[in-house]
Amino acid sequence: MNIEKMQTTEHVAVSSRLGREHVADIVEFLNSKSPEEATDIVAHMPLQWAVEVLDQPHFDDACEVIEALPHERSVALLEGMSADRASDVLRWIEEPARSRLREALTPETRTAIDHLLTYPEGTAGALMTTEFVSVPSTWTVKQTLDHIREVERNRETVYAIYVLAPDTKRLVNTVSLRRLISGNPEDPILSVANPYVPITVPPNLPQEEVARTISKYDFLSVAVVDSTGHVLGIVTVDDVIDAMIQEQTEDVQRMGGMEAIDEPYLQISFKEMIKKRAGWLCVLFLSEMLTTSAMQHFSDELEKAIVLALFIPLVMSSGGNSGSQATSLIIRALALQQVRLRDWWRVALRELPTGLVLGSILGVIGIIRIVVWQEAGIFDYGEYWKLLAVTIGAALVGIVTFGSLAGSLLPFLLKRLGFDPASASAPFIATLVDVTGIVIYFSVAWLFLHGTIL
Amino acid sequence: MNIEKMQTTEHVAVSSRLGREHVADIVEFLNSKSPEEATDIVAHMPLQWAVEVLDQPHFDDACEVIEALPHERSVALLEGMSADRASDVLRWIEEPARSRLREALTPETRTAIDHLLTYPEGTAGALMTTEFVSVPSTWTVKQTLDHIREVERNRETVYAIYVLAPDTKRLVNTVSLRRLISGNPEDPILSVANPYVPITVPPNLPQEEVARTISKYDFLSVAVVDSTGHVLGIVTVDDVIDAMIQEQTEDVQRMGGMEAIDEPYLQISFKEMIKKRAGWLCVLFLSEMLTTSAMQHFSDELEKAIVLALFIPLVMSSGGNSGSQATSLIIRALALQQVRLRDWWRVALRELPTGLVLGSILGVIGIIRIVVWQEAGIFDYGEYWKLLAVTIGAALVGIVTFGSLAGSLLPFLLKRLGFDPASASAPFIATLVDVTGIVIYFSVAWLFLHGTIL
Repeated sequence: MNIEKMQTTEHVAVSSRLGREHVADIVEFLNSKSPEEATDIVAHMPLQWAVEVLDQPHFDDACEVIEALPHERSVALLEGMSADRASDVLRWIEEPARSRLREALTPETRTAIDHLLTYPEGTAGALMTTEFVSVPSTWTVKQTLDHIREVERNRETVYAIYVLAPDTKRLVNTVSLRRLISGNPEDPILSVANPYVPITVPPNLPQEEVARTISKYDFLSVAVVDSTGHVLGIVTVDDVIDAMIQEQTEDVQRMGGMEAIDEPYLQISFKEMIKKRAGWLCVLFLSEMLTTSAMQHFSDELEKAIVLALFIPLVMSSGGNSGSQATSLIIRALALQQVRLRDWWRVALRELPTGLVLGSILGVIGIIRIVVWQEAGIFDYGEYWKLLAVTIGAALVGIVTFGSLAGSLLPFLLKRLGFDPASASAPFIATLVDVTGIVIYFSVAWLFLHGTIL
Repeated sequence: MNIEKMQTTEHVAVSSRLGREHVADIVEFLNSKSPEEATDIVAHMPLQWAVEVLDQPHFDDACEVIEALPHERSVALLEGMSADRASDVLRWIEEPARSRLREALTPETRTAIDHLLTYPEGTAGALMTTEFVSVPSTWTVKQTLDHIREVERNRETVYAIYVLAPDTKRLVNTVSLRRLISGNPEDPILSVANPYVPITVPPNLPQEEVARTISKYDFLSVAVVDSTGHVLGIVTVDDVIDAMIQEQTEDVQRMGGMEAIDEPYLQISFKEMIKKRAGWLCVLFLSEMLTTSAMQHFSDELEKAIVLALFIPLVMSSGGNSGSQATSLIIRALALQQVRLRDWWRVALRELPTGLVLGSILGVIGIIRIVVWQEAGIFDYGEYWKLLAVTIGAALVGIVTFGSLAGSLLPFLLKRLGFDPASASAPFIATLVDVTGIVIYFSVAWLFLHGTIL
């Protein structure tokens, strides 16, 4: 790293801002710089400031900075950072740099980080921090408050205090700081404990479930407890918000019919972008080829009644659109637990009449269109145009109903098979409905037009 | 309300649960009951418990319960609830019940609620609570702590303390409770204040921006401050999480091509469901009619080369799928502020080569398909099948590129015009690309097949 290359004015500016601006604003500023510039700036900050910057999960270049800084400084930073953030950063650093950094840490820090690294990404264990406040249940309110004053600077949150049994160290109850400061100093700590049974999460719980727990109970943090009742760590509300935003991004991208991308749009490499998008696009393309096969099957009918081809995109897309509506409704209803797996038949019973009504509305519009175009002389649909209009109307009812039903039931099927219901993307359901739509369309056409133009 | 009708055992069960379970679990239990049953149960709770239940934003039947309970009890409950929650409940109660309840409130409560009701839904003002802790900047750490102990039970949060100028009452700085309890009791309150300039939000800020602020700074609450520097209220992190979940639901539904629905799927009325879905479905249907018009324009070509019709669904859906991918990517990138409005040309410069590569991949697969089917004798595409294969391949490149470009730029256009970029639904972009796709497809076909089958 070439330190001479830095623009000194910039560092002065950053330093003077650091004194009076929130660290999140400094991080935003650093995110707007290249990783090299960010490294230069962080290299020249006082250590404590640099630790604060790297502790921010929103700092995009944390891994690059840790890798690029001189070894001793990187180690000092990792030592100073919170254990959960340090393990997140180490998780993404490539070998052999990762092992070299890990081995230089103090045994204490290394153990804490190694422990966190054993939990798979996206679980309560990977999200939690081990820096929480716990006290034995034999303590008084005053003893607890004194302890908090002492350790406050090194704990991610002190607003929830975990009370452990003095012998087994198992979780007995939780105390909120607001109740603690209102308590009588000489009273036992349990006198200000929450009145309900402590609510905890297991370490392997997916992060969206952790988010649901925190949001349901309006917690500022929740304890991660193993099967023996010992507190492994806590997940704080700010980590949960970050996890929620990440989940939301993944859901939207999956619903758009692609693999989830975890890097900002303008930063992801071209190769990676193609990789994430080409896979699903090819799967959808290969599935959609079935429409060609279906149409080849009906090519005799098409040849006889070329007029049928004119309405294929219109009729098919309507099925895809109604399916996409139903899918997005059910994906959210499942995510919010408004409907459960066993409710699939209730949903089907709602979507059936909904599809019929929506299909009828479109069917009527479709018939009007044909009548108007024919009568106004804009286009001649041939001798049997009235039968054609009925065909289009009936096909729309059938296809929109099928789309609504298929779109609403697909998320249930995916969930039952263990997939994320949000994988039921709009393109996926549209493709499914397109293929079936062709068959419905030509079957309806045969029914109404057999003996005339077919 | 017929009190005799209640099942006494259930009330006993609920009462005994209330003693040891978290109020959120009681609310979940009540949500599983009908509004009538929930009202019966709440009617027989001690007042303080009923207030706690009604204070939960997750309690679905709050309005129904308040309307159904005897007038005096409803008023007592509204008095006991937090002002922001009480105003949320009143907001949804129909006249004349609303005015009758409002007028029975104490002048103090009424003023607070009236004030909150002036802010439009979905803004910081509507989300905030007026129950926060503020102290004059002349106080000491001890005075502040004593004050908090006194008012703790009546404040939504005491973890952030707002320090006001003693004369103008303007916001001077914020203090966190964790720093406060570590401070020297005799020191002035400002000695433990946060070192950075206080970060606040204006009352008309949309709730997604409030969520972004809280998430960026890892706050537990943020002050809502008017243009004169006075604190109107605070927004707490739990309200922000609820708002985020609601926004996410709306985004997913809009992306699915329908109006957002704010009721649980199984509870919304059939009429409402049709209304929310039919509008967009009709708009999309009418737009998609342009495909029929386009195809009518090319009906002579179709008649000559019916084989072209076989590939229409395949080629068009590929454009829609690539457009849907690009749209969902950009919607999230805009929401996370990874790209700004002025970056539209950078995005276009990325999507152009991405679309070309993705289109080429699909083009090659499409060509292989035709070659294999032809050579294996599965289907006869006619004398000029090689030219047809080239046509399909070239059309795919063109349509997928157009889809990626249009899909990525549409959210920018919507944002520029003041709409929510998430309104760029997958069905919307698919429809847009379908119409253009027909024109591209037949133009490419004319280029390659002119003089042979066309």
